Amino acid sequence: MPRFFKRVSKKAGLSPGTLVHVGKQKIEKPVITVISYSEKHFEKRVAGSVSEAVSAIKPGKTVWINIDGLHEVGVIEEIGKKLGIHLLVLEDVVNTAQRPKFEDFDKYMFFVLKMLNFDQESGTTKSEQISIILGKSSVITFQERPGDIFDALRNRIEKGKGRIRKSGADYLAYALMDAVVDGYFSVLESFGDKIEGKETGLVENPKSEELQEIHSLKREMLFLRKSVWPLREVISGLERSGSRLISSKTRLYIRDLYDHTVQVIDTVETFRDMASGLLDLYLSSLSNKMNQVMKVLTIIATIFMPLSFFAGLYGMNFNTDFPLNMPELNWEYGYPALLLFLIVISLLMVFYFRKKNWL
Amino acid sequence: MPRFFKRVSKKAGLSPGTLVHVGKQKIEKPVITVISYSEKHFEKRVAGSVSEAVSAIKPGKTVWINIDGLHEVGVIEEIGKKLGIHLLVLEDVVNTAQRPKFEDFDKYMFFVLKMLNFDQESGTTKSEQISIILGKSSVITFQERPGDIFDALRNRIEKGKGRIRKSGADYLAYALMDAVVDGYFSVLESFGDKIEGKETGLVENPKSEELQEIHSLKREMLFLRKSVWPLREVISGLERSGSRLISSKTRLYIRDLYDHTVQVIDTVETFRDMASGLLDLYLSSLSNKMNQVMKVLTIIATIFMPLSFFAGLYGMNFNTDFPLNMPELNWEYGYPALLLFLIVISLLMVFYFRKKNWL
Amino acid sequence: MPRFFKRVSKKAGLSPGTLVHVGKQKIEKPVITVISYSEKHFEKRVAGSVSEAVSAIKPGKTVWINIDGLHEVGVIEEIGKKLGIHLLVLEDVVNTAQRPKFEDFDKYMFFVLKMLNFDQESGTTKSEQISIILGKSSVITFQERPGDIFDALRNRIEKGKGRIRKSGADYLAYALMDAVVDGYFSVLESFGDKIEGKETGLVENPKSEELQEIHSLKREMLFLRKSVWPLREVISGLERSGSRLISSKTRLYIRDLYDHTVQVIDTVETFRDMASGLLDLYLSSLSNKMNQVMKVLTIIATIFMPLSFFAGLYGMNFNTDFPLNMPELNWEYGYPALLLFLIVISLLMVFYFRKKNWL
Amino acid sequence: MPRFFKRVSKKAGLSPGTLVHVGKQKIEKPVITVISYSEKHFEKRVAGSVSEAVSAIKPGKTVWINIDGLHEVGVIEEIGKKLGIHLLVLEDVVNTAQRPKFEDFDKYMFFVLKMLNFDQESGTTKSEQISIILGKSSVITFQERPGDIFDALRNRIEKGKGRIRKSGADYLAYALMDAVVDGYFSVLESFGDKIEGKETGLVENPKSEELQEIHSLKREMLFLRKSVWPLREVISGLERSGSRLISSKTRLYIRDLYDHTVQVIDTVETFRDMASGLLDLYLSSLSNKMNQVMKVLTIIATIFMPLSFFAGLYGMNFNTDFPLNMPELNWEYGYPALLLFLIVISLLMVFYFRKKNWL
Amino acid sequence: MPRFFKRVSKKAGLSPGTLVHVGKQKIEKPVITVISYSEKHFEKRVAGSVSEAVSAIKPGKTVWINIDGLHEVGVIEEIGKKLGIHLLVLEDVVNTAQRPKFEDFDKYMFFVLKMLNFDQESGTTKSEQISIILGKSSVITFQERPGDIFDALRNRIEKGKGRIRKSGADYLAYALMDAVVDGYFSVLESFGDKIEGKETGLVENPKSEELQEIHSLKREMLFLRKSVWPLREVISGLERSGSRLISSKTRLYIRDLYDHTVQVIDTVETFRDMASGLLDLYLSSLSNKMNQVMKVLTIIATIFMPLSFFAGLYGMNFNTDFPLNMPELNWEYGYPALLLFLIVISLLMVFYFRKKNWL
Repeated sequence: MPRFFKRVSKKAGLSPGTLVHVGKQKIEKPVITVISYSEKHFEKRVAGSVSEAVSAIKPGKTVWINIDGLHEVGVIEEIGKKLGIHLLVLEDVVNTAQRPKFEDFDKYMFFVLKMLNFDQESGTTKSEQISIILGKSSVITFQERPGDIFDALRNRIEKGKGRIRKSGADYLAYALMDAVVDGYFSVLESFGDKIEGKETGLVENPKSEELQEIHSLKREMLFLRKSVWPLREVISGLERSGSRLISSKTRLYIRDLYDHTVQVIDTVETFRDMASGLLDLYLSSLSNKMNQVMKVLTIIATIFMPLSFFAGLYGMNFNTDFPLNMPELNWEYGYPALLLFLIVISLLMVFYFRKKNWL
Repeated sequence: MPRFFKRVSKKAGLSPGTLVHVGKQKIEKPVITVISYSEKHFEKRVAGSVSEAVSAIKPGKTVWINIDGLHEVGVIEEIGKKLGIHLLVLEDVVNTAQRPKFEDFDKYMFFVLKMLNFDQESGTTKSEQISIILGKSSVITFQERPGDIFDALRNRIEKGKGRIRKSGADYLAYALMDAVVDGYFSVLESFGDKIEGKETGLVENPKSEELQEIHSLKREMLFLRKSVWPLREVISGLERSGSRLISSKTRLYIRDLYDHTVQVIDTVETFRDMASGLLDLYLSSLSNKMNQVMKVLTIIATIFMPLSFFAGLYGMNFNTDFPLNMPELNWEYGYPALLLFLIVISLLMVFYFRKKNWL
Repeated sequence: MPRFFKRVSKKAGLSPGTLVHVGKQKIEKPVITVISYSEKHFEKRVAGSVSEAVSAIKPGKTVWINIDGLHEVGVIEEIGKKLGIHLLVLEDVVNTAQRPKFEDFDKYMFFVLKMLNFDQESGTTKSEQISIILGKSSVITFQERPGDIFDALRNRIEKGKGRIRKSGADYLAYALMDAVVDGYFSVLESFGDKIEGKETGLVENPKSEELQEIHSLKREMLFLRKSVWPLREVISGLERSGSRLISSKTRLYIRDLYDHTVQVIDTVETFRDMASGLLDLYLSSLSNKMNQVMKVLTIIATIFMPLSFFAGLYGMNFNTDFPLNMPELNWEYGYPALLLFLIVISLLMVFYFRKKNWL
Repeated sequence: MPRFFKRVSKKAGLSPGTLVHVGKQKIEKPVITVISYSEKHFEKRVAGSVSEAVSAIKPGKTVWINIDGLHEVGVIEEIGKKLGIHLLVLEDVVNTAQRPKFEDFDKYMFFVLKMLNFDQESGTTKSEQISIILGKSSVITFQERPGDIFDALRNRIEKGKGRIRKSGADYLAYALMDAVVDGYFSVLESFGDKIEGKETGLVENPKSEELQEIHSLKREMLFLRKSVWPLREVISGLERSGSRLISSKTRLYIRDLYDHTVQVIDTVETFRDMASGLLDLYLSSLSNKMNQVMKVLTIIATIFMPLSFFAGLYGMNFNTDFPLNMPELNWEYGYPALLLFLIVISLLMVFYFRKKNWL
Repeated sequence: MPRFFKRVSKKAGLSPGTLVHVGKQKIEKPVITVISYSEKHFEKRVAGSVSEAVSAIKPGKTVWINIDGLHEVGVIEEIGKKLGIHLLVLEDVVNTAQRPKFEDFDKYMFFVLKMLNFDQESGTTKSEQISIILGKSSVITFQERPGDIFDALRNRIEKGKGRIRKSGADYLAYALMDAVVDGYFSVLESFGDKIEGKETGLVENPKSEELQEIHSLKREMLFLRKSVWPLREVISGLERSGSRLISSKTRLYIRDLYDHTVQVIDTVETFRDMASGLLDLYLSSLSNKMNQVMKVLTIIATIFMPLSFFAGLYGMNFNTDFPLNMPELNWEYGYPALLLFLIVISLLMVFYFRKKNWL
């Protein structure tokens, strides 16, 4: 499956604003969960229908409606109609090939983020799209499948830990994005371990499997980059927008979130440089190795070729009856003399190689 | 044919504003199609002359005049004169070496875009120029040849699907540009498939044909880039222009289109990085392969050179009557002893190579 | 002669504003040509002296004074004094090592441009400096030698083609710059042809001459870049300047010229990338070739080294009277058996190489 | 331990503003030191509790509270509560994976910096986080462990050297940051020495250990970069902020500090380029060396292969009774003639190689 | 001595504003020269003390005080006190590790520049720091040692050439900076010659000494870059500053100076690219050469290995009494037939290599 570019061609030719689910269906039926809370009150339930979910939005309460599963566009459309969401927004919700983006529609804000997930087995990063619509007192989230990334947050709401129960929908939206960015850190940690682990053995013994791994590391970095860079624009756009949906208290938290995002980008860029460095190291080690192999070959050839020649010379069948034709063959010490000569030649060669720093 | 730079030298020395068709003639005779519609009305016909086409522009109706074929500059000139289009604009229309551009002439807007088309056979991208002139209630488009990229749009107008019949000429212009950008996505998909397909076999078996293919991939990316980057300026210029030709409703759609363009650019850049990565991979695999070949050569040479030397040694014709001249030749077990010695040497070599991680 | 950096050291230590001609003398004596025209009137003559030329500037007429040859600084100085041109401007006029620049002196504007010229024989680009001073109703141009780049323009003025006779000095200045930029396109075409022509044979047969050619291509691109990038600033500075010397009608043409300049830069950058790609291709092909050569060597060595060893073995002079010393030598079918054995070994080797994808 | 990315995953899922110490515990118990001074007065002591330390803040005096050791979050929390510091700030204080940052909270300013320390033995740079909170008349600093980087500053305060005793808390904060940046210079000096030392031996004798060292140099540069770049934003943010906590006199010093930071960045970037240059040099030397080894091998093989062939030729056992079968073997001067022939061939070869510039 | 980074560590821990001379002492005793002039008046003398020099500053005259030698910080301090210069400025004057910078202190302006000097022998660039303080009617310059770069300027002042005697202190400061930038051009010329000279022999015969030279060229470019880039900020800062110390007439000259600076940067960048291109060329030539060497080796081995094998074959001692054991040995034309066979094989090989384009 192409990871860098999802098939959106089935949308070509359709009217803008037509809802078409791009991506694989990852859950059987969409599930709508509604959490509604105020400082003293907490309620959580699975809604049977869109109307039931939407009816939970009441003044004085913060309502979080979460939809898992995007393939039934009818459900998305109904929510959109009920809450007055622009068709283009809904189109983006179901198109999981969307880039992270932020749009301020005055009455509501729309965010698209990518949740990342490192798969230890294949060594690749999986990405899942999450769309957040922030209204006056409600947050609607759309996920491709139920994930556990927000479980800790749900827990905090239920238990009333931290500021969350005292704050409004804007803080909830922030907390959701914060959870997504936190997830990036754990993906980065896995990559950090992988990269630092690679460096050790590479100089002594560059294996060809590692080439493949370094290459896929570089690709993963490209993939991460594609997800993370637009995020920065999203958060900074949110920080600078003067929308009245965001309270000044929450704005401080968003600035903090922005710092985290920059740190993620920083790390991705550093890892990219490190992965490139690994490839350089790999290739240099390879050259090194080749050089050593060539030296061995050259030394062996340079020693044995002359020796073989002399052995061949005295294997010739010249008529030794003539005194000038290889008289050495008939000397009493001819053979030991030759052996001595060959040994001396070999030693000289070895000595020469030593001096040339080749041995 | 040079794809990266069309011959515009025949224009050198001419007065600016002189209409000269740059590019190949791709159709026999220009065809003028006129589509005129309002919410309740739809009419489509082929106009016999420019006057007939222009006369279709009437208040209360949105009129789309499409001209296929740019080589007859007279036709272009006539349209320009009838509608009060600046000569420089017409010059850009017929010069297919034009960069994507956007110009706001207060009374009308002028766009140049590139339609891309991936040719499966040659593996190259073909580009065709489309110029759009957006007036108050009319859109004039100029294409090099009749294409089917707008057929779906024509269909939507005829059937009255979506917002198009209810919206004005600005929405029509947007829809045209949207169709062009949608076309980019399908070109990118073809490249995505190609790139991801290449990676698999490259590590095990780098073939020299693939070098050519990787190189042409990189070139295609350069070509795409040249077409796509200026597009971003075009759309963002349009988005920011405060022209009264664009209604605020349509502006929202243009923002969406801008997002798509950014996504296209993003993907082109990622693909560029990936194509470069492929070349790195190819070269690294090649080095790897060479290293292995060299090892084999070295091992063979290192084993057989000494063996051959000893064989040659005992092939010498020294007079064995003297007791010091190769007495081994006359030993009863001389030959088996030598064989044993050679086998031991070979085994030691192999053992040494194993230890050095070469075998 | 250094092309990338002209010797300006002879100017060191001189007072700023001192006129020193930097560059080679390319013409014997400066020639002053005066063209004066209005919508109905045209006159062209060679002026004998500076005063004669300057006296042609009269209200109601557009006057173009062209000076070919910069080495007689006296002439330049006289013009400057008569027309009230700043000394620093004149210094720039005679210093042909000048970068393209634009300066607005309220009463007049000053431009430095580089005319490029591709020399087919040496495959290099020659650059010549042209300075343009635009006054209220006059344009003064300074060239190093008489060139034919403006002949078409002179013709258009004489024949009264296009807008030029109806427009003022600002349009004339624009037309001059347009002619210069048009010249760039033909240089780029030559390079485009060269680059696209190179790619074909490079993969199959990388010759060492081509390395030199690719390198010089890259250098030429550097040279082009140095001339073209500042031009963009020049034109965009002109476009944005609110000078009353430029009429609003001409401003439209300048915007068009700016687009052309951007297109030139675009193409230069693309060509740079392509030239780099050529070098990559060259080196990769070389590696490929080397790999194949090494394979052949390895195959030959791996087949013949064992064969030679066995041949050598049976050439040894062991006493075959002892039954264990090479009894095969005295077998009736010893030789055919050995031959068979050698053939089998060779075939096994070849088979092994085939399987390893080396043959 | 991963140096490029500290484990912050244990923070995932926690409520923002929860204090969690990220990093290793480097000291047993936090130590709180209080220095309080005015122009005439100086007092320094170790505070037993947070309350004691905070009570030292009195009008008319500048108070510097330094906390060494961040693992006891209770202490940090207490300080925060007593001085009204935002929870997010405290969170950043204890999270040592923080990027250098600057935040202006109107009543106080918050800085995070990285102190760098070059470890001669391992050749790596250690980084320690320091957080500075600047109030109206007090500065609170948080360090991971007691360091001697501020000893000189403490001394200057005690001795009343320079402006420090006459200036307020803003100057103290500046002096602290200045000390940190000064520390960078000594780290850079160590790297400068290392890099310049490497270049000498690399061309003649590229050893494989040096590859490892060059690679780790490049990595250290990445590490430095990550610490230093954000510092620039910190200082420039501080310089531009119009906070009334900073007096105009101190602002001048901050501009100076900014210049130092830019110089540090400049040097890091130059060192990066130099480290890359070292790798290029290493690889080029390797290629050079390989080329020479290959030449030796080729020369030896080219000389001895023909010689061995001729020796082998005359070792054949053709029946010399037939006059055409190797009559040379029975010539009186056959052997000397052959020797002469072989010597001539060798000399010709050597001569040819000389001419080809190979020997 | 490290050139890229001077030892400033001895400053660590000192109070900001403490004067410490960083760099080598290059002159025995500081020399103070005072030049005072108006349009009609000129006076030049060596001042015995700081007071004497400072007392020369009188209304109606432009005074240039030049101090050669920075190691006696007392002298610098005294000047600073007498003229009311900020301590941080004096600190920058004596710290020769300073980056080029510009600071506007309302009453005076402060510049740090680097004078470059190409040393033909070592092929390296030496840099010397010059600080300029521009007051209302006076210019103070600080140099490390007496240099002749300003001699031409002194001459022009004395002789009253050009505008200088008629202009004020601002023009003098400009003229000083202009002289420094003029010096860059001559350094660049030396590099230009060196680079263009290198290219010629590199393709045919890449020698290992040249690798070292190319590498040092690249390093020099890094060095130049570090000095030149900040200069641009200096001059552009000066150009944009609205200080009343600079008259509008001089501002025109500064714009000209800025253009020169940009040209210097342009050239440095081009030279950097060219030096990188040289390294590419060197490595490519090396690969080329290696390829040719390998071809020769392969051809020799491929021809002589089979030949040697056949020679070895007929040197075997099989009992030729059996008819199947090498009957060729006893043929009348056995030997000539074999020779013919060997020649045919060799010719076939050569023919094959020719066809494969290897010979």
